[in-house]
Amino acid sequence: MENRDQGAAQNHACASCKQQRRKCDETCEMAPYFPASRYSEFQNAHKIFGVSSIQKILATAAPDQRQAAAESILTEGNARKNDPVHGCLGIIRGLNAQIQGLERELHIMKQHLELCKEKEELDGKKKPIKRRRLAA
Amino acid sequence: MENRDQGAAQNHACASCKQQRRKCDETCEMAPYFPASRYSEFQNAHKIFGVSSIQKILATAAPDQRQAAAESILTEGNARKNDPVHGCLGIIRGLNAQIQGLERELHIMKQHLELCKEKEELDGKKKPIKRRRLAA
Repeated sequence: MENRDQGAAQNHACASCKQQRRKCDETCEMAPYFPASRYSEFQNAHKIFGVSSIQKILATAAPDQRQAAAESILTEGNARKNDPVHGCLGIIRGLNAQIQGLERELHIMKQHLELCKEKEELDGKKKPIKRRRLAA
Repeated sequence: MENRDQGAAQNHACASCKQQRRKCDETCEMAPYFPASRYSEFQNAHKIFGVSSIQKILATAAPDQRQAAAESILTEGNARKNDPVHGCLGIIRGLNAQIQGLERELHIMKQHLELCKEKEELDGKKKPIKRRRLAA
């Protein structure tokens, strides 16, 4: 029975234990954060951080923050895999460029809207005021 | 003379050699990318990557890309220091939230502008058409 359980545990080893070719059971502290389904992502993270750094980051986070910490570790690993030179900085720069583009677009749009409103005031709003004055 | 040169090199050890308490001279491959002035940033990066990973990232980058790679390594170290749980992912999520806010603002602005233009058409453009017809 014990052997069968161990076998099952090995088959369902978490990404970290699979990477280190270790047995994985319910006492494994990495298993809740790095399931086998994220093995290739874990490998990306492992390449740049190493297991000890990953464990250290998880250990210094509060228990309810460990899932978020694991997610950030996998994101950095994936980013470095996709862009070995720039890693996350490539994503950050891309997003910053997108923000600058949107801010420029918004600025132009505001100018258009101001012009449109000025024109609207010139065209439409003077007439009712005049009418009201005449009526008084 | 040799001792004096070594002394000078030690005083100007790059961030990596300073961190590892090694002598640093003009043959040091880390010195161009991690000057002593960025020592504390290097320490942040060292804590999560370790020297061997940093060297590996630099080595796999083309020579003209190594400065960019070093910058990304320091950025990730700083991000993890500032936000030990989320690291760069915290920055990425913040920027994504900023983008969503700008896109919402832009969408609203576009609706305002459309309304303004529709009103402008209703108020102003019909009259010149009538005048033109009368003139013909």
